[in-house]
Amino acid sequence: MDGIAKADSALFTINNVWMLVSTILVFIMHLGFASLEVGLTRAKNTVNILFKNVSILAIGILTYSICGFNLMYPGNFAFGEYFGFGGWGISTPEGSAGLIDYFNGQYTYFTDFIFQAMFAATAATIVSGAVAERIKLSSFLIFSTIYVAFVYPIAGSWKWGEGWLDSKGFYDFAGSTLVHSVGGWAALIGAYILGPRIGKYGNKGIIPIMGHSMPLASIGVFLLWFGWYGFNGGSVLSADPGNISLVFVTTTLGAAAGVLGAMTLSWYLSKKPDLSMVLNGSLAGLVGITAGADVISPMNSVIVGYIAGLLVVASVLFFDRLRIDDPVGAISVHLVCGIWGTLAVGIFSAEHSFITQFIGVFSYAVFCIISSFILFLSIDKLLGLRVSEDEELTGLDLGEHDMEAYSGFQIFTVE
Amino acid sequence: MDGIAKADSALFTINNVWMLVSTILVFIMHLGFASLEVGLTRAKNTVNILFKNVSILAIGILTYSICGFNLMYPGNFAFGEYFGFGGWGISTPEGSAGLIDYFNGQYTYFTDFIFQAMFAATAATIVSGAVAERIKLSSFLIFSTIYVAFVYPIAGSWKWGEGWLDSKGFYDFAGSTLVHSVGGWAALIGAYILGPRIGKYGNKGIIPIMGHSMPLASIGVFLLWFGWYGFNGGSVLSADPGNISLVFVTTTLGAAAGVLGAMTLSWYLSKKPDLSMVLNGSLAGLVGITAGADVISPMNSVIVGYIAGLLVVASVLFFDRLRIDDPVGAISVHLVCGIWGTLAVGIFSAEHSFITQFIGVFSYAVFCIISSFILFLSIDKLLGLRVSEDEELTGLDLGEHDMEAYSGFQIFTVE
Amino acid sequence: MDGIAKADSALFTINNVWMLVSTILVFIMHLGFASLEVGLTRAKNTVNILFKNVSILAIGILTYSICGFNLMYPGNFAFGEYFGFGGWGISTPEGSAGLIDYFNGQYTYFTDFIFQAMFAATAATIVSGAVAERIKLSSFLIFSTIYVAFVYPIAGSWKWGEGWLDSKGFYDFAGSTLVHSVGGWAALIGAYILGPRIGKYGNKGIIPIMGHSMPLASIGVFLLWFGWYGFNGGSVLSADPGNISLVFVTTTLGAAAGVLGAMTLSWYLSKKPDLSMVLNGSLAGLVGITAGADVISPMNSVIVGYIAGLLVVASVLFFDRLRIDDPVGAISVHLVCGIWGTLAVGIFSAEHSFITQFIGVFSYAVFCIISSFILFLSIDKLLGLRVSEDEELTGLDLGEHDMEAYSGFQIFTVE
Repeated sequence: MDGIAKADSALFTINNVWMLVSTILVFIMHLGFASLEVGLTRAKNTVNILFKNVSILAIGILTYSICGFNLMYPGNFAFGEYFGFGGWGISTPEGSAGLIDYFNGQYTYFTDFIFQAMFAATAATIVSGAVAERIKLSSFLIFSTIYVAFVYPIAGSWKWGEGWLDSKGFYDFAGSTLVHSVGGWAALIGAYILGPRIGKYGNKGIIPIMGHSMPLASIGVFLLWFGWYGFNGGSVLSADPGNISLVFVTTTLGAAAGVLGAMTLSWYLSKKPDLSMVLNGSLAGLVGITAGADVISPMNSVIVGYIAGLLVVASVLFFDRLRIDDPVGAISVHLVCGIWGTLAVGIFSAEHSFITQFIGVFSYAVFCIISSFILFLSIDKLLGLRVSEDEELTGLDLGEHDMEAYSGFQIFTVE
Repeated sequence: MDGIAKADSALFTINNVWMLVSTILVFIMHLGFASLEVGLTRAKNTVNILFKNVSILAIGILTYSICGFNLMYPGNFAFGEYFGFGGWGISTPEGSAGLIDYFNGQYTYFTDFIFQAMFAATAATIVSGAVAERIKLSSFLIFSTIYVAFVYPIAGSWKWGEGWLDSKGFYDFAGSTLVHSVGGWAALIGAYILGPRIGKYGNKGIIPIMGHSMPLASIGVFLLWFGWYGFNGGSVLSADPGNISLVFVTTTLGAAAGVLGAMTLSWYLSKKPDLSMVLNGSLAGLVGITAGADVISPMNSVIVGYIAGLLVVASVLFFDRLRIDDPVGAISVHLVCGIWGTLAVGIFSAEHSFITQFIGVFSYAVFCIISSFILFLSIDKLLGLRVSEDEELTGLDLGEHDMEAYSGFQIFTVE
Repeated sequence: MDGIAKADSALFTINNVWMLVSTILVFIMHLGFASLEVGLTRAKNTVNILFKNVSILAIGILTYSICGFNLMYPGNFAFGEYFGFGGWGISTPEGSAGLIDYFNGQYTYFTDFIFQAMFAATAATIVSGAVAERIKLSSFLIFSTIYVAFVYPIAGSWKWGEGWLDSKGFYDFAGSTLVHSVGGWAALIGAYILGPRIGKYGNKGIIPIMGHSMPLASIGVFLLWFGWYGFNGGSVLSADPGNISLVFVTTTLGAAAGVLGAMTLSWYLSKKPDLSMVLNGSLAGLVGITAGADVISPMNSVIVGYIAGLLVVASVLFFDRLRIDDPVGAISVHLVCGIWGTLAVGIFSAEHSFITQFIGVFSYAVFCIISSFILFLSIDKLLGLRVSEDEELTGLDLGEHDMEAYSGFQIFTVE
């Protein structure tokens, strides 16, 4: 091997390592989601939430290996550029020598699969938070299996699989729309169909239901921010120094500005510094910068993140007024800020069109809303979506799992 | 330096970075073990468990630097290929220029040491879970210091130190046997000699003693899975793109299938979705795939993981029937699935012999069972192994440490 | 591009990746600090502590992008080598082509910024622990914003910005003084000015106020140790295999020896194995080895860490005798061991002078003590530093935030 070939091999190796490090970081986001959801809900539903999050991760990865990956990256499309399927299972593509396929010339086929597989379960996990504390376990598992196995990858193929929206010039760097809004729309529809938790909206207005562990919620947010460096950093799809370092800066500044945005607006409105708003503010900033982390300047990433922080506070209040009960604020964080981030690309990047970005947002909205409605309503018909009033009051941990999360501790059962 | 030399240097640098990233990942597994053990036991023994886990990590690293590393990788063997010792302490080998020794041509001598050192304490930590809530702190520390300083590295030298089992063709990629079973056998012997916790096996059969924090248990499992990417990924001993990406895929699919295996069997048996079984299922899948992560195909890794998930559920029930009390299921996860994973290499990899794999499993069993028996019984004679009945009922936190884990919270002291 | 240029590009890419991985690791230390501080304090102040830690991270990053980075690395100094300012905001330096500036020839300009930005908030977070449970939120936020935006970077410029102490030959590899003591001095002054928490020092001597969650404290310590591999490993400022592997070994042995040092002394003094001392022992070892992690041999790093472990125990007792109330032991860990580590470079590294190290320690002491005094006293005059007695007794969570950390759990409000 001569010098050039060896140097190429070294570059390939480092690109591949970076993608795998990013994979690990996206993996740990699932612990982040689980901790956040547990922390912001009541102790009596903790086992249920942990069970959902572990199961969906496992199911998501397995279905992605069976069909999701080849639906999202079909190679060839069947109906225009709306749908394609590359075949069942994962295996090295034809013509590649052994395990390594120099996919893209940047990393192996298996690396490509595993990085994408870690993303897949995210969409379902977003839904989990919005429907928490009242959805039947089996119904949720069925919904999210189908959503992750089919809806998410088909929607994803439109852009990342080089489908019709990619052809139109739509841009979504790491998934403000393809991941966060896709999960967010289902979260909205699920929360709407299920209705609010018992006691949330009384005759006297909104009665806040406090989460049972702010340390767990904070651990969740820090881990999500931590993992986001792989989510966005890995979406560069190589270890290119200029791109990944820019993405690190915009991602960090977006998150920090999101904290500040949520802090200022919520402190102004409620006269008290609100921890849960500040936590959601950092996630809002992260979701907001995700669509354009590689095409927005550091200074503009502060603006995008700050506005996302304002939006998440306003949105939480707005959905509460609509009496759509979202225990963890998932709709506000992932859907609202996902839309904002996608549109922000059209505003702050000269190379992308606001109109095209809007078309993308709208198309995903239509597809995800319809899919979610059909799925949730069908499951409701067949199995029922919501646990009984009794079970909801006692808690899903005893009702669904016959188990308590904090054995030996005394917990108030009346809120 | 010409192009080839520079490219070699770049490859060396990336291999070294990958090994150090893996080192960090294995490090954080110790937090995973600690969280899991704390979560699955009672609040009154929490300080004790945390103290054990922090101490053993520190002691394990220090003894490994004093003698363990040179027992495990002795260079030359003294008695056949059963035992060798390369000398006290760590220092760059003779003839190497300064700090860098191009060990294996892949990474530095110090990287080699630190990656292996992080593994060492793992074996003792596995024991910790099985003997929790009733073993004397000092006795446990003495046992595990000796086990980590001598038994683990001598056993390890047989394969990874190029001893007699390596010569026979025995294969254990990342330690289903060398790490997990070695810890698992001691866990079994320890739990057997100590006897069950007070109240576990009454006249009316098995009375489950619930863990006090399922969020901590789940954090533990996620962190273990997270760290496993370094445990298995680093065991490639280079950043070779084809190998590490395959290992990532098999490790992930093994874990996910383990979740599914444990979920289906436990749901079928108990009619309830059992969170602790699902959590142990993912670890079972991980332990199971560890011996062959680089020689088993992705599709077969699903089978290996799924069977591991079934096994862990059956095994937990089995040991409970034998009245061997293992508070966290460590024996089922690490010993049973460690054996399964090692044998699975003989089944799913054409290049390895089932007989040889069995001989390896059997040899480690003999050595570890005898060592553990001698150690535990000697310590029992000299110092006593088990805390007093009074202390066990009050909790080891107050008994051994005069401290409570959750000051200010009310905890039920009667279970 | 020929072989040499390609290989250079590969080396640049891997160096850049390593610095970004280190950046992520330093990021997660902020979760470590938050968990540790929460765990070692009372449940009624948890929301307040989490709010402080999230906010300061965001504020620290933003101010660092506005002025901190260019104060710390001014390029040119104005007053001798004591002060310089490179201009507002971050932008690629003149003459660089586009986003990538081959800064140092090792990594990009943006990587340089983001790695340093993650360090910045650390100093303020150290203060947070020492003044916990009694400082007003707004006053703390103002203090730490100014400290992070001006005091920390100006002090840092003296050595890392190539200022006067760098010219004198002062050595501080990763910040025993520049980060830990700079935070530690402010922690000392803050704790002194605020006075002890109500009830800590009664007529009958010291009444320990126990932390409310030892699992959280332990999670914090493990995450800090985990992140320290980026803190020290990244301070090599390249992926140079010899240097980063040596740094990994000395850092690990220092931490492990710190655990042992604290364990032996505290067990000897109190006759009980003390978990919080052991946890602080590992941090003591880490802070101690930080100044010389790349110039101290592995064997000497054990000595440095062990002495740090002894020191932290003695120091905690000493400050309690002085009635300076430091809820988490931050002064002992970061200030005392930071000084020890800096002086240890003069003892264990032949190339560095003890006198020069002492001059460095002394200069930082003078600057930080004066700055902290002025800041704390001014804020006290203008806004008040301490919450009301009533609020302190009720807890800052209800007093400052109108929110509880553990909704639904019963917490003893009397200690």
